[in-house]
Amino acid sequence: MKIVSVRVTPIAISDPPLLNASGVHEPFALRSIIEIEADNGLIGLGETYGDKPVLDGLLQVKDRLRGLSPFDLNGAARQVHAALSAGAPQTNAVEIDLAPGSQLDKAEQKIFGAFEVALLDLQARSLGLPLHELLGGAVRRQVPFSAYLFFKLASDVDPSYRPDSWGEALTPEQIVEQARTMIERHGFGSIKLKAGALDPEIEVASLKALKRAFPDHPLRIDPNANWSLETSIRIAKLLEGDLEYYEDPTPGLEGMAQLHRATGLPLATNMVVTSMDEFRRNIALNGVQIVLSDHHYWGGLRATQTLATMCDTFGLGLSMHSNSHLGISLMAMSHLAAAVPNLTYACDTHYPWQEDEILKGGKIAIEGGCVMLTDAPGLGVELDRDALRALHERYLECGITQRNDAAQMRKLRPEWIAKKPRY
Amino acid sequence: MKIVSVRVTPIAISDPPLLNASGVHEPFALRSIIEIEADNGLIGLGETYGDKPVLDGLLQVKDRLRGLSPFDLNGAARQVHAALSAGAPQTNAVEIDLAPGSQLDKAEQKIFGAFEVALLDLQARSLGLPLHELLGGAVRRQVPFSAYLFFKLASDVDPSYRPDSWGEALTPEQIVEQARTMIERHGFGSIKLKAGALDPEIEVASLKALKRAFPDHPLRIDPNANWSLETSIRIAKLLEGDLEYYEDPTPGLEGMAQLHRATGLPLATNMVVTSMDEFRRNIALNGVQIVLSDHHYWGGLRATQTLATMCDTFGLGLSMHSNSHLGISLMAMSHLAAAVPNLTYACDTHYPWQEDEILKGGKIAIEGGCVMLTDAPGLGVELDRDALRALHERYLECGITQRNDAAQMRKLRPEWIAKKPRY
Repeated sequence: MKIVSVRVTPIAISDPPLLNASGVHEPFALRSIIEIEADNGLIGLGETYGDKPVLDGLLQVKDRLRGLSPFDLNGAARQVHAALSAGAPQTNAVEIDLAPGSQLDKAEQKIFGAFEVALLDLQARSLGLPLHELLGGAVRRQVPFSAYLFFKLASDVDPSYRPDSWGEALTPEQIVEQARTMIERHGFGSIKLKAGALDPEIEVASLKALKRAFPDHPLRIDPNANWSLETSIRIAKLLEGDLEYYEDPTPGLEGMAQLHRATGLPLATNMVVTSMDEFRRNIALNGVQIVLSDHHYWGGLRATQTLATMCDTFGLGLSMHSNSHLGISLMAMSHLAAAVPNLTYACDTHYPWQEDEILKGGKIAIEGGCVMLTDAPGLGVELDRDALRALHERYLECGITQRNDAAQMRKLRPEWIAKKPRY
Repeated sequence: MKIVSVRVTPIAISDPPLLNASGVHEPFALRSIIEIEADNGLIGLGETYGDKPVLDGLLQVKDRLRGLSPFDLNGAARQVHAALSAGAPQTNAVEIDLAPGSQLDKAEQKIFGAFEVALLDLQARSLGLPLHELLGGAVRRQVPFSAYLFFKLASDVDPSYRPDSWGEALTPEQIVEQARTMIERHGFGSIKLKAGALDPEIEVASLKALKRAFPDHPLRIDPNANWSLETSIRIAKLLEGDLEYYEDPTPGLEGMAQLHRATGLPLATNMVVTSMDEFRRNIALNGVQIVLSDHHYWGGLRATQTLATMCDTFGLGLSMHSNSHLGISLMAMSHLAAAVPNLTYACDTHYPWQEDEILKGGKIAIEGGCVMLTDAPGLGVELDRDALRALHERYLECGITQRNDAAQMRKLRPEWIAKKPRY
């Protein structure tokens, strides 16, 4: 079996004005959709970042995969390395990093990981097996996700945003209301609050209000490293006993290590352990105790399975990080999570915030807080080509080529200044 | 695709009187041959230890695999765990451990690993793919092995040994002669001397003689932890500059760490880093710098691939350990080695010491020091059922059910006493 063609289609999906440490989500989030076709007529699907550096990398690589076996992941990795080494150096317009999605130094893992998912999907489809089985067999058929809450502006703040029913969320009461809606719709059993966006006192009050409203739901807070070490320690004391884990409150692995020594709280990250090198450094420093994995920047599903074994070996917890994404990413995460025995926490997902979809049948259901896996071949989803075309058109029209939450924030609030940690 | 039957056949293969820290190889080494048959009529092959504790474990598990998909490795792992948890506790007749092959606490990894190879072979055969491609693609088609030299008694020391052409090897001159023969026959590009058997001065002189005779061949010495720390340090000074690495001279991870601090020499092991727990401890202690992996006790080929990434992450070298084995094990090692990018040293193999084989076409060629991989499906080998039956008959007749090199040594030299470290 050989690869005969590789397509990469950038798309723009509607995104609501969610607040974070870098500013506010723009009206459109970018994704790249990968299709790898084999000489047996089957097509494997992948989804990853659509920002220019990643898209350029995908386009630089894609034709080099032709002629390879879809099973030859080492060969694909060599082609990614060769193409990116030969290409022009990338530049990065992002002002404030939130996660490795916008970091150029992880290009190779991101580009390879995007193709790897499509190759594994193609392998599984060729075998007539669900992807979870190819990955070693499902240890769970229902993959738990958490309710991902955001402080949020109303959608009418800028006519480019798609009108939404969520409304504004800038107070503890509004956050509890958001949680209630999200849990009613999807049955989530745990809650994550994106923080680092407003004054920490409001965020603490919101977490406390969630604790009162949902006393049995494990709670997490994620300020995206927007709190100084001092602030992080102060707030740790306020939230002690309320948190399942404390995610990336303060910058840097050393900062996290100091925070852990000072508070003893379990710390989670998708910011300071994002590569094998950082994993090694974390073992020496004991900065974080829970790794929020993400196959989009860890180099694919097999690499994330390896990361899972490493977490098990070194006594670290494991869960999954998310960016704004559609169903191919959701299903890749779910199949992976199904095959990883030591997934110790419900995964993150932005999926309930996205209304667009490019799959036949539309949005994937999240019920009882879980994505349910079937035995359909591969990822178990099929492209709706009309929907894909429409979102590609929107990509061409929207004028965004690289996420910049800070620029969008300044557009809405001209006095806003990028600063990190802000509090 | 479902598993319809699993066969486990214990066999006894001729083994010459090779000396080591535990005594001397008995006239027969035991192996278990695994066959897993699917409802598509294809059969996956595996080979592992044939000693009673492992054989009993294989037999306890085998029927529980029926009905599983050959891709469901997590399901197979659950069945192994359940069967071994339910079974009677094992007892161990081994007096002196050389490697995890005889350690009861690694039963689960050993039993699972044996079936996992057969399952992966079955997967690959069902796909019509060579195993190296299923494992991610060959980064090398020629897998390098080293010449594995032993101090040795003449085969007429006991009429049970098969007469061999190697003769006695108890002096530096005889070891050089053994190396010359082995390199002439197989073209090996590096040399390993099994030590810990004779007086260290003879072993050092033998290594020095090898250095003079083969100045361009990297050299290794492996006393199987039969030297005290003091002896190991003393000999390190004598051999400084002669060694590619220094393998398991002294017992225990702490001992190896002290030795490394004292000498700075790169230390290799198949004795003190043999599980993920020990891997973690080694990172803290920096006891060894090179892990000699062995899929037979690390839990199979996928687990060894994970180990390889972990070695890469933590800056450890990687090679492979061997026991007396036949061609199924050799090919499993070779396919794995082909798909592991960071295999930093030629692998060990006892294979040139074995004259028996259970494969159609007989012994697998090692030429230019390498096993050459083809694109034949799976492991690329087929059982010779007559040969398998004959070696199973020999297993039933030979009276050995568990390796005991010390007992065999006392039979030949009644005054010999088990002691470790001896020097």
